[in-house]
Amino acid sequence: MNTYPSRLLEEAVIELVRLPGIGKRTALRLALWILKQDASRAELLGQSIINLRNNISYCKICHNIADSEVCNICADDKRDPAIICVVEDVRDVMAIENTGQYKGLYHVLGGIISPMEGIGPQDIHLDTLIQKTETNRISEVIMALPSTTEGDTTAFYIYRKIQKNVQVISAISRGIAIGDDLEFADEVTLGKSIKNRIPFTV
Amino acid sequence: MNTYPSRLLEEAVIELVRLPGIGKRTALRLALWILKQDASRAELLGQSIINLRNNISYCKICHNIADSEVCNICADDKRDPAIICVVEDVRDVMAIENTGQYKGLYHVLGGIISPMEGIGPQDIHLDTLIQKTETNRISEVIMALPSTTEGDTTAFYIYRKIQKNVQVISAISRGIAIGDDLEFADEVTLGKSIKNRIPFTV
Repeated sequence: MNTYPSRLLEEAVIELVRLPGIGKRTALRLALWILKQDASRAELLGQSIINLRNNISYCKICHNIADSEVCNICADDKRDPAIICVVEDVRDVMAIENTGQYKGLYHVLGGIISPMEGIGPQDIHLDTLIQKTETNRISEVIMALPSTTEGDTTAFYIYRKIQKNVQVISAISRGIAIGDDLEFADEVTLGKSIKNRIPFTV
Repeated sequence: MNTYPSRLLEEAVIELVRLPGIGKRTALRLALWILKQDASRAELLGQSIINLRNNISYCKICHNIADSEVCNICADDKRDPAIICVVEDVRDVMAIENTGQYKGLYHVLGGIISPMEGIGPQDIHLDTLIQKTETNRISEVIMALPSTTEGDTTAFYIYRKIQKNVQVISAISRGIAIGDDLEFADEVTLGKSIKNRIPFTV
């Protein structure tokens, strides 16, 4: 599929194909779909992409995506500023917010330490987290990082830097998901699930 | 995933999710990817979408997508204007052009007759095809339409309307794809493949 009948079509496909997970065929399908829509639809789509990148802010407290200097969560005085949940990116914030179970604040690292990908402690928002624990009275820091070597490394790095300033350092529990069968669980998860058993409640 | 931390992010996701085959999670992933790119990258992507829809033309001869009034293929005087290949959409033109095996012109219907979807003969570019066969001397019309009930219906409709004007009406051959095993071919294809056998050449 190299012979595009139109330069405009080819340019759109070239840009769409850069998107992660979008191949050449899908990009062409999307471009032809766009052609069949109202001009206002294409305008809204194109403009929303440009606006997103040009006008987005990041919260100066937690580094979450925001429309202003401070995000809605950090600005909400009903939330407990003494509890900080450390996450990799904004998707994790959204996932935890969706549960409605958490009333503390967040700290978005914007990445995790990964020597393989050349991402060191200085490349993610670690300094501001450490500063927070030094200057504010933080009662608990919750690690909600990926359960990978990189996630564990990052959590351990943070732990060493903040342990003297913070009363409680916790991590989200790992275990068998609600509704999942034990026989299909992987050994590591099931092992952790038994080791970290909790009191039975009725 | 309902609690977007930013209105701009939410707006971008709402627009991206309208794209065919793009779900909510993928749209969010794309939006966050866009956020991590240079502003110029997002500008190019957004603008290419808007330009595509606003500035595209359709060839007045074959209805193919074009950057001007007449597409490159119709404007190419090395191609044989007496042979017309009838296709459903621009993707089919690109696919056939890619083979380098065809030197005639095209006629892009922009759809096929489908009573189920309420698409009748008047909704696709049929009139201009029939006119062409009446006013120009067309030696051959090749049907390259989908092998579905709708494709067959459309081909038959065209056949009836143009048969008196055109010397040869042909259809692309259907059969076992090169490299495919006979045992895995579906019965209809294999049946057609035997029925429409061709002289053996060495």
